[in-house]
Amino acid sequence: MELKFVKRDVLKEKPTDETKLGFGRIFTDYMLMMKRDGERGWYSAQIEPYGDLQLSPAALVLHYAQEVFEGMKAYKTDDGRVLMFRPWDNIKRLATSAERICMAPFDQEFVLNSLYELIKMEKDWIPTSPGTSLYIRPTYIGVDPFVGVQPAKEYLLYVILSPVGAYYASGLSPVQIYVESKYVRAVKGGTGHHKTGGNYAASLLAGEKAHEKGYDQVLWLDGKENKYVEEVGSMNIFFKIKGELVTPMLAGSILPGITRASIIELAKDMGIPVTERRISMEEIYEASLDGSLEEVFGSGTAAVVSPVGELIWEDKHIIVNGGKMGETTQKLYDTLTGIQYGRIPDKFGWTVEVK
Amino acid sequence: MELKFVKRDVLKEKPTDETKLGFGRIFTDYMLMMKRDGERGWYSAQIEPYGDLQLSPAALVLHYAQEVFEGMKAYKTDDGRVLMFRPWDNIKRLATSAERICMAPFDQEFVLNSLYELIKMEKDWIPTSPGTSLYIRPTYIGVDPFVGVQPAKEYLLYVILSPVGAYYASGLSPVQIYVESKYVRAVKGGTGHHKTGGNYAASLLAGEKAHEKGYDQVLWLDGKENKYVEEVGSMNIFFKIKGELVTPMLAGSILPGITRASIIELAKDMGIPVTERRISMEEIYEASLDGSLEEVFGSGTAAVVSPVGELIWEDKHIIVNGGKMGETTQKLYDTLTGIQYGRIPDKFGWTVEVK
Repeated sequence: MELKFVKRDVLKEKPTDETKLGFGRIFTDYMLMMKRDGERGWYSAQIEPYGDLQLSPAALVLHYAQEVFEGMKAYKTDDGRVLMFRPWDNIKRLATSAERICMAPFDQEFVLNSLYELIKMEKDWIPTSPGTSLYIRPTYIGVDPFVGVQPAKEYLLYVILSPVGAYYASGLSPVQIYVESKYVRAVKGGTGHHKTGGNYAASLLAGEKAHEKGYDQVLWLDGKENKYVEEVGSMNIFFKIKGELVTPMLAGSILPGITRASIIELAKDMGIPVTERRISMEEIYEASLDGSLEEVFGSGTAAVVSPVGELIWEDKHIIVNGGKMGETTQKLYDTLTGIQYGRIPDKFGWTVEVK
Repeated sequence: MELKFVKRDVLKEKPTDETKLGFGRIFTDYMLMMKRDGERGWYSAQIEPYGDLQLSPAALVLHYAQEVFEGMKAYKTDDGRVLMFRPWDNIKRLATSAERICMAPFDQEFVLNSLYELIKMEKDWIPTSPGTSLYIRPTYIGVDPFVGVQPAKEYLLYVILSPVGAYYASGLSPVQIYVESKYVRAVKGGTGHHKTGGNYAASLLAGEKAHEKGYDQVLWLDGKENKYVEEVGSMNIFFKIKGELVTPMLAGSILPGITRASIIELAKDMGIPVTERRISMEEIYEASLDGSLEEVFGSGTAAVVSPVGELIWEDKHIIVNGGKMGETTQKLYDTLTGIQYGRIPDKFGWTVEVK
């Protein structure tokens, strides 16, 4: 398939104040749009002006949530190059997520190369202040105008771009996390280890309740016993206990985070032991009592590494490292963002320059 | 709020061959469309020409599946009246589903009355052949053009209508059901007892695998122990064991079917004992071995009552009533559809004439 280009007549004004970018509200001039139907397969791919979709009110995605997405970023280096971080892993995960809910396969290499073209085209939209980046949202939806419950034949796969501000406007500040014991995000056999839209809808209520109580995010427990740690709202989670990093193993209900995988590799490379295993809140609570719980942090595309200052579990307040960011957390954050922004040599082969 | 009307210039041609209606592919001339935003609340409601929606590619519903829906029907009686079946219960459930995923509340009475107006307007679209009806699909979606994970402020609530054929074109025929032991539909604490889009996306893969093996639908087991019966793809399920009807109790992961509730009330009225309780596949298998499993059927809006002829559980084939429809199943089907089509007096107050 050939990637076409449709020019827009008038370009938008780019934001001038990078301190006011926020997250995900401003979109660039162009988007990548690919289309598929039942007869022709993938029949159209183009970079076209960012604009509204025309969807039937019966479109499958609006009824049965046949939708998956990814989140990734493009970074501008101090010398003006454009870097992306493991984008092939995101595109691969998009394909795996799609497969779980019976969406048509797509050519991952074609999508990745088309994405590079889009980024090149929109490189002037990448902000340059510390911590800012261009957020990239590949989205894949089933759109047949048919209200029967079945996999779609017609699809749109598109990518939109949004310049985003620094996640921590005033430096990394530890978050307070509410451990959710009533609502469940996912269970083995479900869709929890994929980026399907429904997982996020299901998470909203617990998130709102945590916000009302003044906490930043929710920590989900397993759906079977409500005992074992799974993941935080939009991040995987790591505990540093007696010098070792522990993170829940991927057992079918946790998102296989690309930042998570990078942290594991990076920590091991730094000589920090890492174990992926089942870990209960009881164990974490006991480690906090005997002083062996040293640090807690989340990992994800948005914040990269996010220190956790406090966990609230039932009536227990678990204060981590006196509510301050730990040394290992800081080191992992600095190294990973250093690689992403091209300040530190990338010996892992994670970054790619888009040029 | 006032319900407005926007006329379309040219009406569509109505289908002439009612044997070819199928399900959910043909839509009528008009739809009900209500809009809400963060400042004004619900600010617009109108009956307008059926047509495409304009949605931002960033619209929340396309990423985080903030979407709920309902399925209901309008029936034409032999003497030309239009009946609906417990529509207030569907609208109430739409509101409950919406609440579970943090969607804004709406005026249920206003929606119900507006729906009646739409049905009146489109009554000539209701087919009249035996078993046909007008399928009604209320849909509620969050549409903010913002890719942060949070509840929407902007919403569309709309209702589309589709004339549908008889579910069983050649008489009620028992279905073969595959008992799913690997994939899980829902777990307590999740969204399984609500009509959120994500539940349906999560169900597609198991459904496809069952179809490939030649079975009609999937029977879901509980997400914790994979032992207890929950519901069928698009139906609740009933077992007749030693003269008693048994159906899984509503314990947080099963959809509270309106047909289910009606069957329970109807059966009790007929003098058939009904128990809502936990029931395992082991118990059903044993009942089939000792001959006490008399009948199995599903209940839902689409098929009303659907006889089950065979359950396939691991390597066991459980043949129900020699693969034929049972007497109680037939009686419940005849009575319930009789009430819905106005052939049998409705002593329960379930039907409403739209006039």
